[in-house]
Amino acid sequence: MDRQQLIAEIRRKKSYLCVGLDTDLEKIPAHLLHEPDPIFSFNKAIIDATRPFCVAYKPNVAFYEAYGSRGWESLEKTIAYIGQSHFIIADAKRGDIGNTSARYAQAFFSTMQADAITVAPYMGEDSVTPFFSYPNKWVILLALTSNKGSQDFQLIEDGDGALYEHVIRKAATWGNPENLMYVVGATHPEYFAAIRKLIPDHFLLVPGVGAQGGDLSAVSQHGFNKDIGLLINSTRDIIYASKGLDFAEAAAIKAKQVQEEMAELMGKYID
Amino acid sequence: MDRQQLIAEIRRKKSYLCVGLDTDLEKIPAHLLHEPDPIFSFNKAIIDATRPFCVAYKPNVAFYEAYGSRGWESLEKTIAYIGQSHFIIADAKRGDIGNTSARYAQAFFSTMQADAITVAPYMGEDSVTPFFSYPNKWVILLALTSNKGSQDFQLIEDGDGALYEHVIRKAATWGNPENLMYVVGATHPEYFAAIRKLIPDHFLLVPGVGAQGGDLSAVSQHGFNKDIGLLINSTRDIIYASKGLDFAEAAAIKAKQVQEEMAELMGKYID
Repeated sequence: MDRQQLIAEIRRKKSYLCVGLDTDLEKIPAHLLHEPDPIFSFNKAIIDATRPFCVAYKPNVAFYEAYGSRGWESLEKTIAYIGQSHFIIADAKRGDIGNTSARYAQAFFSTMQADAITVAPYMGEDSVTPFFSYPNKWVILLALTSNKGSQDFQLIEDGDGALYEHVIRKAATWGNPENLMYVVGATHPEYFAAIRKLIPDHFLLVPGVGAQGGDLSAVSQHGFNKDIGLLINSTRDIIYASKGLDFAEAAAIKAKQVQEEMAELMGKYID
Repeated sequence: MDRQQLIAEIRRKKSYLCVGLDTDLEKIPAHLLHEPDPIFSFNKAIIDATRPFCVAYKPNVAFYEAYGSRGWESLEKTIAYIGQSHFIIADAKRGDIGNTSARYAQAFFSTMQADAITVAPYMGEDSVTPFFSYPNKWVILLALTSNKGSQDFQLIEDGDGALYEHVIRKAATWGNPENLMYVVGATHPEYFAAIRKLIPDHFLLVPGVGAQGGDLSAVSQHGFNKDIGLLINSTRDIIYASKGLDFAEAAAIKAKQVQEEMAELMGKYID
């Protein structure tokens, strides 16, 4: 999905919601555990229920990998089931030397048909650029993450700014707003205005709203650009809204609530 | 495998060689492509041929993931086939928020029986510590990598040293020499003496010897500690030593050469 299509979908649905698929056998409703592929059965029901209210899905690859090749099959089926109607983010936090990043790109952009992959910047340019060789596919680079550990290294300052600012500025010379987004955690709303000055046009993927404590309204106000420019992820609040037989219905209700709040924020801050 | 066992194996074999398994369908001998699982057939032959000369194997997960769940099956079979006689490093460069890193730990330490996983430090403490909850399993944290992009962020300096030094120092407070190693590329031999001052006891995993240009002798001289303290990885020079029917034999010859050089360096620099 390219940038124009993504923006069109956001405007049409009045939603910049990304639903995280961190599907955990210990958290899904017990009745699904008798299915041949419980993870896929859960995802399928969640996807069917939430499709109208979100523009993106973000399977968290670790939760599939935990079950080995069987888990990878569930992931492949999930991505195929989502199809081309939604922007698909493989949340994989990959990144390695050039020839190896090229293989990760093959895994997620060719073997699987994800639109985007999250990438860790530590190894620098040649660990990131191989992902750009697939047309209409995206790197979503970690900049300022939502977790407590984000303060260990990402805020280290030399004379030219914090590490996360170096990452944002350098990577903006490797990619462009058509193939590069950044991860900025909702738990750092005070940084959004400064980040928007560095990269007015790039989309930001924002985790940390909901269970992690981030505030949708504050993030939207400071993070929006003229093309919306935000994908806000919510996982636990939606996919685990109920552990009962009504889990999909409960997920839909919760996703719709978020979508309605987003529609309001778009009306308030974007013409 | 714990630290004492690893050191004992290194002393017994007079080898601190790790053989990288970046198994690539485009590079393995053509006659293997008719096998039901060419990647596993190749690895099996390479492992059989090189077992006496190395103490560790390092499958590069990207090369398996590139083929999706089928590739993961090849990886699972490879790790099972290596078994407990060698130290197994899943070269995966993972790292995410705590609950997600816990899933990556499950994938590589429980579902698969690797001894160690490479981890990227960008997300800080809670992205690393979940891997320490498995006894006798290891984190191998990226510090100063072998690629050109290592200069983009890893050398950024604040008043207290370069980013990679911050990573080394902080992580040394999260783990200890029994469960934590660091990646330091052989392409930076000038940094080894300073790194040894920061962490005299930790093992270093050193990629970049051979095809990437690093010098085994210089790295050993400056990187050794009293317990050897080095695992030096070689991949392409060994596993792709020949593209013919003799590929395994050629790999054995090459691995034996490296082992003999290592035996000599151990004799020269370690009593």
